[in-house]
Amino acid sequence: MVSDPHSVGFVEPVLHSFEEAITLDCGRVLPRYDLMVETYGKLNADKSNAVLVCHALNASHHVAGHYAGQEKSAGWWDNLVGPGKPLDTNRFFVIGVNNLGSCFGSTGPSSINPETGKPFGASFPIVTVNDWVQTQARLADRLGIQKFAAVIGGSLGGMQALQWSLSFPDRVGHCMVVASTPKLSAQNIAFNEVARQAIVTDPDFHGGDYYAHGVVPKRGLRLARMIGHITYLSGDDMAEKFGRTLQGDNYKYDLGGDFQVESYLQYQGDKFADYFDANTYVLITKALDYFDPARHHGGNLKAALAIAKARFLLVSFTTDWRFAPERTREIVEALMANQRDVTYAEIDAPHGHDAFLLTDARYHNVLRSYFDRIAQELS
Amino acid sequence: MVSDPHSVGFVEPVLHSFEEAITLDCGRVLPRYDLMVETYGKLNADKSNAVLVCHALNASHHVAGHYAGQEKSAGWWDNLVGPGKPLDTNRFFVIGVNNLGSCFGSTGPSSINPETGKPFGASFPIVTVNDWVQTQARLADRLGIQKFAAVIGGSLGGMQALQWSLSFPDRVGHCMVVASTPKLSAQNIAFNEVARQAIVTDPDFHGGDYYAHGVVPKRGLRLARMIGHITYLSGDDMAEKFGRTLQGDNYKYDLGGDFQVESYLQYQGDKFADYFDANTYVLITKALDYFDPARHHGGNLKAALAIAKARFLLVSFTTDWRFAPERTREIVEALMANQRDVTYAEIDAPHGHDAFLLTDARYHNVLRSYFDRIAQELS
Repeated sequence: MVSDPHSVGFVEPVLHSFEEAITLDCGRVLPRYDLMVETYGKLNADKSNAVLVCHALNASHHVAGHYAGQEKSAGWWDNLVGPGKPLDTNRFFVIGVNNLGSCFGSTGPSSINPETGKPFGASFPIVTVNDWVQTQARLADRLGIQKFAAVIGGSLGGMQALQWSLSFPDRVGHCMVVASTPKLSAQNIAFNEVARQAIVTDPDFHGGDYYAHGVVPKRGLRLARMIGHITYLSGDDMAEKFGRTLQGDNYKYDLGGDFQVESYLQYQGDKFADYFDANTYVLITKALDYFDPARHHGGNLKAALAIAKARFLLVSFTTDWRFAPERTREIVEALMANQRDVTYAEIDAPHGHDAFLLTDARYHNVLRSYFDRIAQELS
Repeated sequence: MVSDPHSVGFVEPVLHSFEEAITLDCGRVLPRYDLMVETYGKLNADKSNAVLVCHALNASHHVAGHYAGQEKSAGWWDNLVGPGKPLDTNRFFVIGVNNLGSCFGSTGPSSINPETGKPFGASFPIVTVNDWVQTQARLADRLGIQKFAAVIGGSLGGMQALQWSLSFPDRVGHCMVVASTPKLSAQNIAFNEVARQAIVTDPDFHGGDYYAHGVVPKRGLRLARMIGHITYLSGDDMAEKFGRTLQGDNYKYDLGGDFQVESYLQYQGDKFADYFDANTYVLITKALDYFDPARHHGGNLKAALAIAKARFLLVSFTTDWRFAPERTREIVEALMANQRDVTYAEIDAPHGHDAFLLTDARYHNVLRSYFDRIAQELS
């Protein structure tokens, strides 16, 4: 894999500690926090070629490359980021940050609370998309990056990119929002709430303080992931992948599971429950639910986006029923009403919401062209 | 309510015991079973005016009318069935049967197994749509009904109506299939499987023998119902009903639930978990998954439906994303390819899958006209 000329190769995350307190949107104060960070490529002399990649629910700072000695350790957007790839690390300095509250090295519910010497657990504050943007801005300050060439993300990552253009309008050259939405619908919130209820009603959750009990609410996490997974795929995609194909030759007439789609979902749920933190899942779904930049403008998205100065690329996928193209078009229309520079691509792809993570020629060509344009501006 | 001239008034269910053994599709034998039944209207002299109403997942024999002394005890299709209503009990003898395996009086997992003196629990056999039709046919035999004027049902009830036309082609005059499908999709099965996993992984499930432990897997049932409920409503309907309306004035920044859609779902889940049997939920979702009349015809629905002799009414709803109109059109096309008499109405209604239970003028007019036609044939 190190011999792949388009891979960033072996990477190592770096922990950045921030000893300055931060007041979160919820009003609570974290006296200090850590952010786990990876970077790829080189920051140029005038520090103008930095691209921040924001992650979605279950991803992390590990955007590209591999970890030495670890099989199957490719970053979650490794198909996009690397030398000669659409986000070309020969041209750009790419930054991945594990969000505050997550469970891959940044301070979160499973971290030790220095005030108690025990994991935060239920006492970890609710964080918002804007909180993440604020902590990412401090990281940018530390790296000497005044303005990002681009901030990009898919799904919840796209919300962060959009929030960047609002919280720090002068610090974002291009805002690239993929498979996202200006706010969750009632149905989106409903799915999140079922996932949360699966976790918090798991007897092993212990009100969020399961660390002290030496257990993990795996049943709940597993169900949460199974529910989520259904919403990430399109119905047609599931039909194509699984249809009604049986695991065996015939109906079993028991509860062991008959159809391949059942064992697939169970496998995905089991795998997820083995590595993800339940409190983080709950926290991040709350951040999703709360995101709604128009909220402080009487629901007027145009008014909310008026502050943005970035140029925008928005991408949606036709079969994404979680954040359907209509949702992205709301952002496009609000930006255009503000006379902003907007490029919008609606990609006809079969893979539902997950399409933003997959390799699709039309999709990647759009991103490649757009990053080429940014690179030309820099040179 | 007894003064309502369009209500069937107070009703009482009747338990019918069948002491003849039945061999189920799974190969297992039930030596005896009970079916809880309600009827409305009067069977005419030649017993030609009987209409069988088949119920969906969580409903029962209680189709219409009220129970004396019980508030809010209207039958689940009371808006459709009664004197002068679309299914007019002045003309038709209407029968509701609680399905075998259910939990409202018919023999099911919570019934006492006469061989052990304990509830069947996990030992209750898996039942299929065809098994229900077979037991309903025995009830028809007992009531002296050789041929139903119509068999009607919505959702899983529609599957039973369709199966009647295949298992007993000479005993169904009209087959009325509402908001149904010839088979579940991978996505449908996936949602069912998450619901089942929520139940069977609830520590209070005890492998299905929770009765002996004096507990009920309410956490799991509650989640199953919450998931189901999301699929019964359309996204637009949820947006209309709840949108992002908060329970309070502001975000709470805790896990107590912020949005009205959250408390609504929790309420629905709690209510359901208080009255429904968990084993029955699991059983009935399996019956849904297994329904696939084309299966023994190499997936060819036209071949599967060739045996049917009934005339057909099919109804679907534009915003039903659980069993979308496309699914009903598959049935329509297969019937037309067999030169059957088919009427199809695609109703533009906002309420998703649940529309089949609701009062919608266009929908009810279609049913009224169709039943009028049947009544004219009888007279």
